[in-house]
Amino acid sequence: MTVPGRGSPGVRRSVLDYPKKRRNTRRFIRNTEPAALDMDWLDQVKWANDGLVAAIAQDAVSGAVLTLAWMNREALARTAETGEAHYWSRSRRRLWRKGEASGHVQRVREIRLDCDNDAILLRVEQAGGIACHTGREHCFFQRLEGDRWVSVEPVVKDPQAIYGHG
Amino acid sequence: MTVPGRGSPGVRRSVLDYPKKRRNTRRFIRNTEPAALDMDWLDQVKWANDGLVAAIAQDAVSGAVLTLAWMNREALARTAETGEAHYWSRSRRRLWRKGEASGHVQRVREIRLDCDNDAILLRVEQAGGIACHTGREHCFFQRLEGDRWVSVEPVVKDPQAIYGHG
Repeated sequence: MTVPGRGSPGVRRSVLDYPKKRRNTRRFIRNTEPAALDMDWLDQVKWANDGLVAAIAQDAVSGAVLTLAWMNREALARTAETGEAHYWSRSRRRLWRKGEASGHVQRVREIRLDCDNDAILLRVEQAGGIACHTGREHCFFQRLEGDRWVSVEPVVKDPQAIYGHG
Repeated sequence: MTVPGRGSPGVRRSVLDYPKKRRNTRRFIRNTEPAALDMDWLDQVKWANDGLVAAIAQDAVSGAVLTLAWMNREALARTAETGEAHYWSRSRRRLWRKGEASGHVQRVREIRLDCDNDAILLRVEQAGGIACHTGREHCFFQRLEGDRWVSVEPVVKDPQAIYGHG
């Protein structure tokens, strides 16, 4: 897969830079006039100095908060185009299509922006019912009990079975 | 109200520094042995270089994602002690008890930590049913429709009535 803009998370890039096939699959940008591709809506997001915003994914069916990840401009544009959640991996410093390794993609039903324009909420259908790399439904499985964080959610699938490691 | 540690968001501070009354109201730190007050659980959080982590508040009843805010160590300690959500305001650069001006406090039922130890999820009871300073139930009221962000949630209460401005 060609992943444009793996460099700086702050890079601004038109969707016209994307492969044509990708452009034709966009779900949220329905207006195909050139004006729409300027993507003013992306300019309205208050990107932090590092070019990122926090992005929450919520299961559209169960309501569970699945993940908190990060998006740069390109990740959000890709998410809107493809209808699949894309993020910026801060640790790997690259664009990342959620589920590209695990198959646990997030189909995006809705993209929301908060009152300060600096946080995104995705309402998603979570493939496999597993959002966390630990094989759990969601990432927030540690609960504060007294003075300890306790894992309180079951592992649905062994990560070695998900990623084929080990 | 005395608010300790209004300075740097990265300051580490023991709960012993808090007024005794506050200490006695803590809800999540039930073990009163000195060891518990060292708060190893706070050390397990991966604070970013700026001393903050992202904190999502979710309505424990409706499941709605209400807010995304930021916590420093002290905000999280206070939240656990008092059972009311405290955040670090990046714009005002001070500790902030949610609802201190509006009355729309968040009573915390549960504190969760994610798999990477760098994001917090609070499950809360939202006083007044209003979490957003715009007078809406939650902050994520702008939905991407085509190439526009559209406000799709009603204002429950006029902000001027909430804050007494104007």
